[in-house]
Amino acid sequence: MLDDVAIRLSAPVDHDGVEDRVAIEEPLEIRAGGEAIAVTMRTPGHDEELAVGFLHGEGLLAGPVEHAGPPDDLAANVVEVRAPLRRLPSARRFYTTSSCGVCGKGALEEVTVHAPPLPTGPRVDRATLAALPDRLRQPGFEATGGLHATGLFTPDGELLAVREDVGRHNAMDKLVGRALLDGDLPLAGRVLCVSGRLSFELVQKAVVAGCPVLVGVGAPTSLAVELAADRGLTLCGFARGHAVNVYAGAERVR
Amino acid sequence: MLDDVAIRLSAPVDHDGVEDRVAIEEPLEIRAGGEAIAVTMRTPGHDEELAVGFLHGEGLLAGPVEHAGPPDDLAANVVEVRAPLRRLPSARRFYTTSSCGVCGKGALEEVTVHAPPLPTGPRVDRATLAALPDRLRQPGFEATGGLHATGLFTPDGELLAVREDVGRHNAMDKLVGRALLDGDLPLAGRVLCVSGRLSFELVQKAVVAGCPVLVGVGAPTSLAVELAADRGLTLCGFARGHAVNVYAGAERVR
Repeated sequence: MLDDVAIRLSAPVDHDGVEDRVAIEEPLEIRAGGEAIAVTMRTPGHDEELAVGFLHGEGLLAGPVEHAGPPDDLAANVVEVRAPLRRLPSARRFYTTSSCGVCGKGALEEVTVHAPPLPTGPRVDRATLAALPDRLRQPGFEATGGLHATGLFTPDGELLAVREDVGRHNAMDKLVGRALLDGDLPLAGRVLCVSGRLSFELVQKAVVAGCPVLVGVGAPTSLAVELAADRGLTLCGFARGHAVNVYAGAERVR
Repeated sequence: MLDDVAIRLSAPVDHDGVEDRVAIEEPLEIRAGGEAIAVTMRTPGHDEELAVGFLHGEGLLAGPVEHAGPPDDLAANVVEVRAPLRRLPSARRFYTTSSCGVCGKGALEEVTVHAPPLPTGPRVDRATLAALPDRLRQPGFEATGGLHATGLFTPDGELLAVREDVGRHNAMDKLVGRALLDGDLPLAGRVLCVSGRLSFELVQKAVVAGCPVLVGVGAPTSLAVELAADRGLTLCGFARGHAVNVYAGAERVR
């Protein structure tokens, strides 16, 4: 997966007479079961992974993905996914954007998680967790300053895959979608690291992907900490090279 | 408005034996026309402003707000807004989260803006624009490291109001909602400054609020620059005290 971290950047944008690159933001429509399920504002690239990862995170997939790609009408900025669905999308429409997550759940009581239990391992060195952001390759961010990243690591801190996007949730959806297409779910012996803050929704996506350890460069929210503690996820925030805060699941930290 | 910038922080959260504060993230259901219109993950505080600002930004309000507050059933984390609506919410359901914007538009062609033209003024000193982030009071961020902020300024750089939230879009919705309730829309002679990146959706909200100048600490996206240029908004990114990049509407910058 490391071969294809590069994503498409914008044509040069002028500011103050200087030509510069910015992160591309464009809508993507995700179709499944013959319907438009969601529209997300994303950075083009790895669109099939994004679509598959999103549907998986929402608990919509009931079996293997048969096809993820352009729709029959070849409409631009649309990915069609053909797979057995757990329910008819029309039974609960939801729409999303770059940082969207609980879209369409439509009522407070539906903001919950249905996912299998996480494994008790792995055990990870605290110093390794703290250093993960330094190992997160972010070529798109380096070129634009405007992209989030999610990285997949071994417990020893080896980087296995990176995805970038204007939306933090999209970056993780792309990574999880790739793992699903490769048959690598659940991410039981892995560690996820995100370049930004830790929201409820990112914790939820990690849990649904079966990944027991989630590290972030930024702050966690109250609900992120609560969900992590409830589900037994190891949640680490403010990872900053030499130190990291462990908010939940400290038993996996050595 | 400056009297009430403080928002509720979490109870102390333990990490590594240390007690610390994190930003609260909780779902809020926005009801209008007797229906649940949206669920957004937000930081509690200024919920009525958030609900009103969201509905305004989505173009749903057709007249003055008669009521914004707890619903008749007094359900927690719900705000009911009573106002003439431009259309029945059920005609186009949408759901949202902390950073959500195009939710429910449901098709690519609907990601557009319908707003009145922006005024030709004001003219603002470049040095003033660059310095706005330094003047943005963020007590919640200082306590947690986990909140976004939006500030409303005069063209001279005087801070008029600040709102904070885990979601960048919510912070702006709260600010615009307050202005609407105070009869201060459109924000014709004002400048908005956000603590993060500049997405399409934030530009759209500024345009719909009638604010001609938008400044951000972070990077703009391609679609944010395109929309700003198309609507004649002055869009400034990477504001960093001594300098700022102007991506569109440079005629208002002195």
